[in-house]
Amino acid sequence: MRAILIGFGNVGRTLAKILSVEKHRFQGLQDLDIRVVGIFTRTKGCLIDHEGVDLASAVETVERYGRFIPTMKGYCDMEAQEAAQTLDYDVLLELSTLSIEREGEPALSHIKAALRRAKHVVSANKGPLAFAYHELKRLAEEKNVRLLFESTVMDGAPVFNMVRNCLKGCSVVEIDGILNSTTNYILMRMEEGATLQDAIKEAQEKGFAEADPSNDVDGWDAAAKICVLANVIMGAQITPREVKRKGIKEVTPEDLKGARQKNKCIKLVCSAKKRDQHVEATVEPTLIDKEHFFATVRGEGSVVRIKTDLMGPIMITQEAPDLYDTAYGVIDDLLTIYRKTS
Amino acid sequence: MRAILIGFGNVGRTLAKILSVEKHRFQGLQDLDIRVVGIFTRTKGCLIDHEGVDLASAVETVERYGRFIPTMKGYCDMEAQEAAQTLDYDVLLELSTLSIEREGEPALSHIKAALRRAKHVVSANKGPLAFAYHELKRLAEEKNVRLLFESTVMDGAPVFNMVRNCLKGCSVVEIDGILNSTTNYILMRMEEGATLQDAIKEAQEKGFAEADPSNDVDGWDAAAKICVLANVIMGAQITPREVKRKGIKEVTPEDLKGARQKNKCIKLVCSAKKRDQHVEATVEPTLIDKEHFFATVRGEGSVVRIKTDLMGPIMITQEAPDLYDTAYGVIDDLLTIYRKTS
Repeated sequence: MRAILIGFGNVGRTLAKILSVEKHRFQGLQDLDIRVVGIFTRTKGCLIDHEGVDLASAVETVERYGRFIPTMKGYCDMEAQEAAQTLDYDVLLELSTLSIEREGEPALSHIKAALRRAKHVVSANKGPLAFAYHELKRLAEEKNVRLLFESTVMDGAPVFNMVRNCLKGCSVVEIDGILNSTTNYILMRMEEGATLQDAIKEAQEKGFAEADPSNDVDGWDAAAKICVLANVIMGAQITPREVKRKGIKEVTPEDLKGARQKNKCIKLVCSAKKRDQHVEATVEPTLIDKEHFFATVRGEGSVVRIKTDLMGPIMITQEAPDLYDTAYGVIDDLLTIYRKTS
Repeated sequence: MRAILIGFGNVGRTLAKILSVEKHRFQGLQDLDIRVVGIFTRTKGCLIDHEGVDLASAVETVERYGRFIPTMKGYCDMEAQEAAQTLDYDVLLELSTLSIEREGEPALSHIKAALRRAKHVVSANKGPLAFAYHELKRLAEEKNVRLLFESTVMDGAPVFNMVRNCLKGCSVVEIDGILNSTTNYILMRMEEGATLQDAIKEAQEKGFAEADPSNDVDGWDAAAKICVLANVIMGAQITPREVKRKGIKEVTPEDLKGARQKNKCIKLVCSAKKRDQHVEATVEPTLIDKEHFFATVRGEGSVVRIKTDLMGPIMITQEAPDLYDTAYGVIDDLLTIYRKTS
């Protein structure tokens, strides 16, 4: 199966490692035969090789020089959109980051271009799903290809896959959870005495907060995630702008101290609830009892609780995700497509 | 699809309600067309009706008289084993209870009889899976039929389904969790000051402890569950007798008080770990930090944590299961078979 990668940040490089130099470590991946025929980035250059890009060298070069270099085989200059529209491939992996201001673009256009050409799509970027899920879904159905995005919420922990394959016959009536790792880490550190600024800096140094932390701190990332969940699992038709959203900027050390004295803590909780014919989604700092499940989700952990008409609530919790977990979300989607098509 | 039910206790009756008088409540079940052609019990009599047993009347009669009565349509006298061997049906639902002493019998024989005749099997009874999973699996594969058992561990919360469908490419290296609701409830009540005997009585009155509580209290139910998980998910070849097992009988109020003073609690924890070529399984009362996820699993709740080579650990938690959750496990299995065969 031939793939093109759009984006080659932490997740893309971890994925490339798992598919190349580290593949021997994972028994379950031995039958997965993926040839990456192109990698396209906005700031690191591009590589095209119809016989398969040398992934180990691509990773090594970026980790050494911060970008691809002109002496590499297949080094070239092509926009991701042109690649999506013209190259020969079977699946497009969209691994770029969320843009709220641009409403999921340019990733959204890459995905549309691929689907229109009847190519499968795996997206780790939640933007296109948060802003245009139903349109993309219709397009994928028309062209009889798959549109998968397991890693957009809770990394590789199965959420979409679980509802799709394991809750047959159930209608989801409510979802809530802690979906943004960065703010969960920041709130934990602030509870321990750090300032907001110091906690952000730490999260950046640990590699899970973006250089511009506003998507996390202002609740946009969480809003995009609850949006994808609500649209996909509950049939909602909302965008992140319609989520009732409050970030963590106004949470003070005093708030956290006060909570602690009442044997509680503050978490950035996302929720989506069915109300008559529509779905109401919210992101806001919430007082949580220390004996509640959500209180034990510490640091970069995350949790989602799903309530259905027939059973539940059940929860899926991710304790301490790392880049392998995010990359795994993409791999699981690749395997779903690979096993159906090969 | 024609089904026979073996056992008509709490789970069987809840299932019968969901499939009959309550079906209109569940949108996702409208396409499920199951005709129950026989119900066989050890102490409540049997019903056979090739045109479909009247489930509403079966439930009502048992709840009123404690058993089926001779004036009912299809009332008869047939052993479950004979039914499994001779009747015309598509799927056998084994809903009887665990027998450790008899190593999963007589349920094991019912299941074998069905599989040998190339009938699908859904088992809510964990005994046959704990004692003979690999034999049953081979038999089902030979006959090209499904053997499903989602409700044997954590009721309807997807565990087997999740590993099968949502952790593609992952090898499970370790499992641990709290799998027995009754002892979890008892330990919670003892922590609150109740005696072991009182807590058992309460659990019986609430309907989730058996009349003979020894399977729960001595850890046999938990051992059977970790065994099924280890055999199915980790490829182990063990029976409950090979699980290193310690029940909760020796846990004293003083132990619980001591734990509390150290900000800990005691939980009956099950685990299975890969050690070289074999799997080591354990059930034992374990000190758990109050800030640990497991500590927040209260009352009849349960949790399983799954660690794989590629990602995780992830956890699935069931907060407050009731009979609908257990019945749902059976329904999910039925839907899996129904959608593949119809």
